[in-house]
This record gives sequence, structure tokens and C-alpha cells, in this order.
Amino acid sequence: MTLQRIVEILRNGQPDESVTIKGWVRTKRELKDFAFVEVNDGSSLASLQVVLNPDIPGYADAVKRLNTGASVEVAGVLVASPAKGQRIELKAESVKVYGEADPQTYPLQKKRHSFEFLREIGHLRSRTNTLSAVFRVRNACAYAIHKFFQEKGFLWVHTPIISASDCEGAGEMFTVTRFNLQDVPQTDSKKVDYSKDFFGKQSYLTVSGQLEAEVMAMAFSNVYTFGPTFRAENSNTSRHLAEFWMIEPEMAFCDLQGDMDLAEEFLKYIFKYVLETCPEDMEFFNQRIDNSVLATADNIINNQFERLSYSDAIALLEKADKQFEYPVNWGLDLQSEHERYLAEEVFEKPVILTDYPVEIKAFYMRLNEDAKTVAAMDILAPKIGEIIGGSQREERLDVLERRIEAQGLDKADYWWYLDLRRYGTVPHAGFGLGFERLVQFMTGMGNIRDVIPFPRAPLTVEF
Amino acid sequence: MTLQRIVEILRNGQPDESVTIKGWVRTKRELKDFAFVEVNDGSSLASLQVVLNPDIPGYADAVKRLNTGASVEVAGVLVASPAKGQRIELKAESVKVYGEADPQTYPLQKKRHSFEFLREIGHLRSRTNTLSAVFRVRNACAYAIHKFFQEKGFLWVHTPIISASDCEGAGEMFTVTRFNLQDVPQTDSKKVDYSKDFFGKQSYLTVSGQLEAEVMAMAFSNVYTFGPTFRAENSNTSRHLAEFWMIEPEMAFCDLQGDMDLAEEFLKYIFKYVLETCPEDMEFFNQRIDNSVLATADNIINNQFERLSYSDAIALLEKADKQFEYPVNWGLDLQSEHERYLAEEVFEKPVILTDYPVEIKAFYMRLNEDAKTVAAMDILAPKIGEIIGGSQREERLDVLERRIEAQGLDKADYWWYLDLRRYGTVPHAGFGLGFERLVQFMTGMGNIRDVIPFPRAPLTVEF
Repeated sequence: MTLQRIVEILRNGQPDESVTIKGWVRTKRELKDFAFVEVNDGSSLASLQVVLNPDIPGYADAVKRLNTGASVEVAGVLVASPAKGQRIELKAESVKVYGEADPQTYPLQKKRHSFEFLREIGHLRSRTNTLSAVFRVRNACAYAIHKFFQEKGFLWVHTPIISASDCEGAGEMFTVTRFNLQDVPQTDSKKVDYSKDFFGKQSYLTVSGQLEAEVMAMAFSNVYTFGPTFRAENSNTSRHLAEFWMIEPEMAFCDLQGDMDLAEEFLKYIFKYVLETCPEDMEFFNQRIDNSVLATADNIINNQFERLSYSDAIALLEKADKQFEYPVNWGLDLQSEHERYLAEEVFEKPVILTDYPVEIKAFYMRLNEDAKTVAAMDILAPKIGEIIGGSQREERLDVLERRIEAQGLDKADYWWYLDLRRYGTVPHAGFGLGFERLVQFMTGMGNIRDVIPFPRAPLTVEF
Repeated sequence: MTLQRIVEILRNGQPDESVTIKGWVRTKRELKDFAFVEVNDGSSLASLQVVLNPDIPGYADAVKRLNTGASVEVAGVLVASPAKGQRIELKAESVKVYGEADPQTYPLQKKRHSFEFLREIGHLRSRTNTLSAVFRVRNACAYAIHKFFQEKGFLWVHTPIISASDCEGAGEMFTVTRFNLQDVPQTDSKKVDYSKDFFGKQSYLTVSGQLEAEVMAMAFSNVYTFGPTFRAENSNTSRHLAEFWMIEPEMAFCDLQGDMDLAEEFLKYIFKYVLETCPEDMEFFNQRIDNSVLATADNIINNQFERLSYSDAIALLEKADKQFEYPVNWGLDLQSEHERYLAEEVFEKPVILTDYPVEIKAFYMRLNEDAKTVAAMDILAPKIGEIIGGSQREERLDVLERRIEAQGLDKADYWWYLDLRRYGTVPHAGFGLGFERLVQFMTGMGNIRDVIPFPRAPLTVEF
């Protein structure tokens, strides 16, 4: 475990220092009297250039075997590099080849591969520049989320993955069962007899941990979830996954104002952390994938988010000197084109819209005094659109019961959720964001399937 | 979000400081001229004692309403406490009651409740001393795991939850489906037609992320998983859950020695971090739940783990002056009684057993030179038994193929796993541990259902 990581050598290695590196060959160049090999260990985008001279033991054999994808250990001495764009390189003193990669069959030769093709070799694609940069940024982003909340005293709570309730009424859920589907037990009235299944009732994969997070916030004040959630929608798009990770903080004694403050601080923190810890990867995305990602990050970090009500936003959109595809009318949900117009053209920075019409939002959002709007908030970012959705929750028992009934839901299903309002209820608020969407926006990657190691989507369950 | 947390006030608050706290009433004592209320906000085991004097506005009404479970905001001034066991208390200047909790119906009155009863009110049980201590320790433990790996440059990788393969052959899996179970599509030959299901093939909830973690280690060198895993075993015991979280680090260029070094360092780090960040909670467990938890933690932190081979362990057990219930014989798996004898009686500290018989271990573990044992390791701790299991992985393509075949598995199912050995294979190793088991051991809690917020087990899927 005293492996020297290439990221550290590239940053801090000094000429004449002895090091041993272990990694995989990215490229090899054979010249007349020596060979260059670029070795990458996944710790950084950049590889370390290794210079092999004929006087090292086994030179000819090593050079022959060290094709792209081969695994190798090199011991040697760092020297200042005469080559452009790299400070140091490694003069090899000994080389050990662990495993070869036959150039005739190894799929990742030195050329551009389409992301579609790379998805078919999901077990190898992390060895490419782009995917490895994505997963380093993904990791930094994930850790920044934990750091942010932990430093504020929030508890990470694990809400259940298997659930017997469709908590948001979001529909489209996967069933979890132990039945042999060849022979599903039935009741006398020829219905599925779920009482005979593992959990004794119909069970699903969760679509959100929010309601359970509220339970925990009523004991610990500030909590957050960070776990997988599921949607069984048959959406074959570049922005939908059947399995994705979600972050859902929930704060007791917090109103919509506090919710917005936290969400804004959260986004600034995450973007800043990733820029600081993965500068090369972010530079790479800006150069190769989407030349607006650094400007977008900068915009989020350095601007105070604009805050205005849904009603004011509708007024702005109605008088906009612009033709929209979808109609604008108080009471209708905003479309992506409207959101982007506000964030990109009107304010040119992130915008938080608040107080949406009650009809278009979930039952648990707190009803405002006007009885027409709820204390909801959505954060819209330039180039990105909606990135966070949150609300103050309805903490008044009688109002919440009426909202549940009005939506045609069964109060009995929510007995424990209602109990939170019956015993020591408090104003509380929270928000949610999809982790892969965040990584997608941060990196500019066009397809969400390329920001999660092993994507799940319709007909897609390989690896 | 400028909420002052009670944990900080109890630690650092000074007399004459003005503070505002928000939390829930644990107990109330009414005296003739004033009242004491203990307020807890979940940030610490200890509550803050609030002194209410009749001269504050609304005194009589507040005292009447502030029963156990009520939510409250108190502004006031800290004063040195004359009472035993607390440094400071809060002299209230104003009180705001947010929500009441009817003493006639609120289930958590001031008395001992059984853990069985508390499981029935899983939405309220985190408001008790024991469960709140458990979930604070759980959080500290979870964050320590991330910190440990991140500081070493490991990437957190999210391996898939829904999987089409039974990767370890561990059996007992949940099926994930979008079929209407009332009407499952069939092929012409009357088999279930999985090609019509959401993923186009039979899909399950994962039992381990190891194989996919190996994929990622072959690109990033060092990675770890930390996510939910599932077992559909019909085990109604105090140590089994159908849904639990698992941690699985995987390291390229690492042998069994490096694997053991990392696992030992890992355990020491986690126990140390939790003792440092949750001293009161750990003290509480030692006093109220299991008076050996501090000694066990100390034993893990301060001893160099004993390392010996399975064969040597068998020899020790065979000559032990002790009657075991289960037989001891080279080739048989060790039982809990054997493991505990070694850790508690022979060595009196954690023991790492290595090199188990090939027949009793998984196909992916690296075959030793003797062809009879594999490079596996299990860590056994006093009072705890097996806490970590790991191995060096078989990196030789031909050997791995033979092992897969020998176990009656189909090589074709492992095409991508075998590719890792085909292209740039390297020695690598990893280990796994169940997160809830770790928290259970750390806290001494008798039932694993009490260390996860919302346990899933046979017939148990509430909340």
C-alpha cells in the first residue's frame, strides 16, 4: 500500500527522486535507440511519460509487450522532461510487465471511440480519458456532498430501498418479489396473493427517501439522504436512468428562506470543491466536451442567485420579446425553454423560483396564506435548467390531511407521516437533486448514461 | 440556518451567552415557582436543561403545553448550573411552542420501552436515547469510512443495484420486474417471457458490488463501494437483514499482505474516529447496552492483529483444551465458537486467518501454489467474530476459467469479468464488510434491526 500515485508524482515529484509506479500503458512510441511509454494509473488525467533505454534488463521483450492496455510496474528516477507540456518524466531502471493486451483484440486502441461504442464495453471504458475524468469528478462531487453536510452537523441517514408505499405518488415503480413468476400464488378470488410474498405485501423500489428523511429530521433536526432511487419509466432519453442516486437534505425548524439559503450554499460549495480538486479534468471537459462548463461553474460560484416568485416569473415571460413553443399562463408548469430564458437571458445567473400554484406541486408542500400557492422552490441554472427542487413541508395536521384527501390518496397509508404532525410538529423544509444530473451538468456530458459506471435503462442491464 | 445546536452549547457555551435553541421536550418537571424542561435537538445524547420562570411571557400556557415530545424554541441566557452532571443550563427569556404531543396518546412517555415495541413505531423511535445514539454513531461510522478511503485517494464507485447476474453465486435473490404479476407474459413454450420485461432479461437486486468494483479498480487502481445490497434469505434472526449496506474496497497491484494491512488500518481508523467524535454515545452503550464495547474498541485500536494461516488455526483448535459443539477438521469451515475461541482465548485480540481450503471459498479467490488453499483472509475480533472477509483475486485467466468451470458456472456469463484478465491483468485484492454488522458490533446492540433506520426482513417492510 505504499504505491506512489501518478497524480502526486506529476504534482510534487522532483528530479533525481526514485519512484516506482504501477499502471496501464496508454501509448507506446518506439524510436531507434529507446522507447517512450505513457503510463496511467487512473489517479489523474495525465499519464507519466516513461523513458525506456536499451540498457535496462529485458528491454526488447518489455518494449514488445508494452502495448496499449498492458499493465506494468516501472522503477526508476525522475528527470526534468525536455518535452513540451510535462514537467518531469521517469527514466526507467527496471520494468515488470504484469499483463499484456493483445493489439489485435483489445478494443481500446489509440483513436477516438464513440460513447455509444464505449457503453458496449462498460467494463473497459473507464480506461479512456473522458470516462476516467467523469468518474474522478463524480467521486469528488460525491465526497464534497458528504463533507458539506457533515461539516454542518447533518446526519447521513439511509432511507429504505425496498418500500411498500409509493410515497410521492410518482407512479412508475419496479416491483420487488421473491415469487417464481412462472407460478404466482393467487387468492381465492384470483388476485395475486401478496401475503405469501417475502414481505407479505406488494413491495417496490423506492422513488424517493423524502418522507423517511422527514422522520429522521424530526429527531435529529438536520439530516440528508444520499442513495439510489428508481423510476420504471420507459424513457429512452439522454437524461433519464431507471436507477440513479439522489441527495435529499431535510431540516427541522427551517422555512423556505432557510431552504433556499442552504441550497444555494450547497451548490456553490460543490462546484468550488470540484474545481479545486479536479482542475485538469474540468479543463479537459471545457476543451473537449462543452466549452461552457467552466463559465457555468464560475457563474454558479460567484453570483448571488436571483430569487423571485413563480407569479413574477410568469409576468416576465408574458411580456418577453420572444416566441415560446409552449404557452405561458399562470397555473401552467414552466417548460425548459422558459426556465432557460429566465436564467440565461433575463438574469444571466442562477434563479430560484418560489411559490408555485398548488395544483402543479406535490401534496406535502406547505400551503401559502393565499391558499393558491405552495412554499416550493426550484433552482434554475444557465445552460442547465432545473437542478434542484425543494419546498417547505406542510407541518399543519389538518391542512395536510385535506391535501392528501384532495389528491385522492388514502390517509391511512400515511399514518406515520401524519403522526409527525401529531406529535411535536415543527416547520421544516428540504430539497432534492439527482446526482447524475448534477455530474452531467458539471462535466457537460451529453448522455446521462456516461456519468454513471453501469447505467440501467430500458433493455439495459449489462455488467 | 443559524440554529445553535445543543451539542455545541453543551460543549462550548459560556455563562451570560445569549442563545436560541430549537428542539423537542424530553422531560418536564414543574415545581412551585418554576419549571425545568429538558430539550433535545438530536445533536447529542444529553439534553439542555431549560429553566422557566413565571415572569416570562405566557409562562402558564407554555408549561401546560410543554409535555414530552412537544417541539419548542427557547431564547435565553446560559447560566452555570447548580445541578449535578451538567455544566450549564439555559435561563429562558422567551418560549415558543411549535407543536404539542398529547400525553394521552404520544407513545414515548418517560419510561423504558422494549426494542420490539420501538420497532413498531419506527417513525418515532429515533427520538429515544438509545436509537438516537445508534444513528449518530452510524453516521460517524459512515463518514469515517468515506474519510479513510478518500484521504488515501480511493474513488467511491457506485456499482449497480439492479443486476442481471448472480455475481457470487450467492443465491437467494430478489427479482425486480415491471410485469403485472396478475398477468405475466409467457413464451410459446409457457415459460416466463423475460424479453418483454423492462430490462429484457430476468433481473435481480445485487448481492455484492465486488465484480464491478474490480472493473473500476482496473482503471483507477484503488476504489471502494458503499451501497445497499440484498439477500432474500428467509432468516428471521437478530443478525440478518434483507436490505443492508456494504463496503467493498478493491485495490489493483495489491496482494493478500497489502489487503490485510489495509483492512487492519481501516478498522483501527473507524473505531478511533467514532470514539473521538461520539464519546458520550459510546459511553452510553458501554453503560446501558453492553459493558464490553469500549474494551473491544480499545482492543481493536491498540493491538497489532495476529496473523496466522487457517491450517495453523486448525492445529491450535485441535489441541485446544476445550469441548466444541462443531467438529474441527482441516477442510471444514470454522464456526463462530472456533473463531471466538481464537480471538478471545488464544490471542485475546483480533486475528486474521489466511489461506483457506479452496473448497470452502468463492471461485474468484486466488489459488495458492499448493493448489489446495486460496489467498483468502477473514478478520475475527473478540466479542464480535468475523467482521471482515477478503481475498487476493485470481488474476490468471486460465486458472480463473478452470475455477469457474469447476464450480459449474457458465464462463459466458462472466465474459466481461474474464476480459479484465485478458487485457492488462494485475494482481489485485479487496475485502468486504457489512455496515450494519459493524455498527452492531460497535454499539453492542443485540438486534441488527435496531441499527438501521427502517429495517427490511421477512414480513417487515413498514415505513
